[in-house]
Amino acid sequence: MVNIAILGYGTVGSGVFEIINTNQEIVNFKAGKELKIKYVLDLRDFPGTPVENLLVRDMDTIVNDPEVEVVVEAMGGVEPAYTYVKSALLAGKSVCTSNKELVAKHGAELIKIAKDHNRNFLFEASVGGGIPIIRPLNQHITADRICEITGILNGTTNYILTKMDKEGLDFDTVLKEAQALGYAEKDPTADVEGFDACRKIAILASLANGKSVDFEDIYTEGISKISDTDFKYAEKMGRSIKLLGKCKLEDDGIVVSVSPRLLAPSHPLFHVSDVVNGVLIRGNVVGDLVFIGSGAGKLPTASAVVSDVVDAVRHLNVPTTIQWEAEKLEVLDFSKSKKQFFVRVAGQNKEQIENAFGEVTYVDAGIQDELGFITRSMSENSYEDAASKVEGVITRIRIEA
Amino acid sequence: MVNIAILGYGTVGSGVFEIINTNQEIVNFKAGKELKIKYVLDLRDFPGTPVENLLVRDMDTIVNDPEVEVVVEAMGGVEPAYTYVKSALLAGKSVCTSNKELVAKHGAELIKIAKDHNRNFLFEASVGGGIPIIRPLNQHITADRICEITGILNGTTNYILTKMDKEGLDFDTVLKEAQALGYAEKDPTADVEGFDACRKIAILASLANGKSVDFEDIYTEGISKISDTDFKYAEKMGRSIKLLGKCKLEDDGIVVSVSPRLLAPSHPLFHVSDVVNGVLIRGNVVGDLVFIGSGAGKLPTASAVVSDVVDAVRHLNVPTTIQWEAEKLEVLDFSKSKKQFFVRVAGQNKEQIENAFGEVTYVDAGIQDELGFITRSMSENSYEDAASKVEGVITRIRIEA
Repeated sequence: MVNIAILGYGTVGSGVFEIINTNQEIVNFKAGKELKIKYVLDLRDFPGTPVENLLVRDMDTIVNDPEVEVVVEAMGGVEPAYTYVKSALLAGKSVCTSNKELVAKHGAELIKIAKDHNRNFLFEASVGGGIPIIRPLNQHITADRICEITGILNGTTNYILTKMDKEGLDFDTVLKEAQALGYAEKDPTADVEGFDACRKIAILASLANGKSVDFEDIYTEGISKISDTDFKYAEKMGRSIKLLGKCKLEDDGIVVSVSPRLLAPSHPLFHVSDVVNGVLIRGNVVGDLVFIGSGAGKLPTASAVVSDVVDAVRHLNVPTTIQWEAEKLEVLDFSKSKKQFFVRVAGQNKEQIENAFGEVTYVDAGIQDELGFITRSMSENSYEDAASKVEGVITRIRIEA
Repeated sequence: MVNIAILGYGTVGSGVFEIINTNQEIVNFKAGKELKIKYVLDLRDFPGTPVENLLVRDMDTIVNDPEVEVVVEAMGGVEPAYTYVKSALLAGKSVCTSNKELVAKHGAELIKIAKDHNRNFLFEASVGGGIPIIRPLNQHITADRICEITGILNGTTNYILTKMDKEGLDFDTVLKEAQALGYAEKDPTADVEGFDACRKIAILASLANGKSVDFEDIYTEGISKISDTDFKYAEKMGRSIKLLGKCKLEDDGIVVSVSPRLLAPSHPLFHVSDVVNGVLIRGNVVGDLVFIGSGAGKLPTASAVVSDVVDAVRHLNVPTTIQWEAEKLEVLDFSKSKKQFFVRVAGQNKEQIENAFGEVTYVDAGIQDELGFITRSMSENSYEDAASKVEGVITRIRIEA
């Protein structure tokens, strides 16, 4: 029997509790041992529920109990999660977490502590919810130079963009709908401004390269400025707009970014709609691999956490290989990254546009008093230079090759 | 340093050799040790190539060399692959293979021998080419009751069906094109009659349930009878036709089958086209997970084999958990499996059709002298009963829910 403690009885924590109980037979069979939840750490009371008698308020109870071998961290946020996780690892317990903020900030350090203590720090659910993506990166895609990881990593924004695309609605209307449905938080900033996707691509980029990518260094642009008019142009181009986290080996170096992009129907992530997440991994020998599934939600996320628990139980005294060093990964400054841009400019001054951008391809979506056009491939810097020479730039959206 | 032997220097074997050399730095880093290919077993000579001096003709040289720790089997077919693999495992070497015939027939036994000798028998490339699907099933999807696995598991037939769909061509024309392009073999039987997909779904069904599914017990129907007229009806229904390997927990039991099916655009595999493979795994808590990538081809397949080699090197004396017992899985007889059918019948005798099938939905694709219709959900047996009461049944294609 293996004793487990769950930190935090919110959405994910209660989901883990539920799965370990409802899928008990399967989970025990897969783990090769019987799992027993001994403690649930939460400051709240849950009278009349099955966790009532498992509740503890003090992390020390868990840390100091040698019977607890696996700790599930499902509190979210950096503190006190970081302090608790570290103390559990130092006490020789394996830790499984769904906490992307924690992993993005302290991943390399916590992996090292776990390894030094012959234990595991696992975080499959921190990116892509229920989609297996961390474990494939660590254990499977080991024969390839990873040329690109591109992901739709945030369900809220994908839901909003899908709705805007399919129903022609504007951003504010759809955001309110998403909030009413519980797909968006009351304060939606972390999702719509791309901060959530930023932490997730930081984790994937670090694992793909074995060194740390600081999420604070990642160019991050959200979707709050995407308008229904942008989607009219997108439709004219036969494209859709998706918020993409990207880590790409370009000619001059590795570029990591989060931004809305115009995707063609031939792109492997074009059909990933609504709250679904999808990740494309492009290897130099395996080609394109695509992973699609529920990127959020209580049970899908908890399913990934429980898969980590099973993994931790299978490897109680054997650290699994996770190559992610604290050393910083050298990345290319985003301003040097090259791509085509779709640009909207007020007025009808083609001469000014062409003087600044050279040859462009106009897109006529029937919008009055403005011009929409596609530039040649150019660096972010060159784009900014050219755009500064044009009056009335309304917006620009990057085009995904 | 870890010494490796490759059995067979054909497409996959030479791909493994190539990747271990071209991606040497990455592969060694991921494995944590330097990999060295010591032998290549092949009856042919390859003068002037880098394997010239590594060639051996006798398996005993490899089996009796204690320096060889990992053997890559890339010969294909059941014999002599089975005898060679078994002797390597008995001699305490781990084995990695892409050989679906071997795995479908002897998987459980070889896994047991490997485990008994503290070694690994790994076969990621045997299903889905470069797509990680075996390892996710073994290591990742461990928190869920697997309700369904549905896969486009054969690139040749998917290429043929995609061409027929998009270009309105008939089966024979497209098959000849596929043969000319090297996408189909000179004798295409194993692909077009579904035998290849049958072995692959047998492997997935066995891993999903931990017990053996004999491929000879699987209802298997290929695509050689699918016509351009069928695709006209499919288009009218807004559907496509794909060859699906399926393992599904139906109301009355687990059903395993290979057959062409009519898919709606909302199906997760609808957009998996050309030679690409895709697998849908439906769990009771994680929901739908979809894995897409190259299902065949030298480098994608070899990439998966090398990922197994890395895994084997990481776990030289630690058998990884693969739950697949020799005991036979109890499956439901296919005749009891329920679904809707699309049926084409010569003539215009609606009365006879409705007397036999009850209420049906007619599909008018503008085809003369016949009727096309969709039945209610019924068992295979009930379908056969009803069809026997109707004269002139041309064909029937199952509808994927």
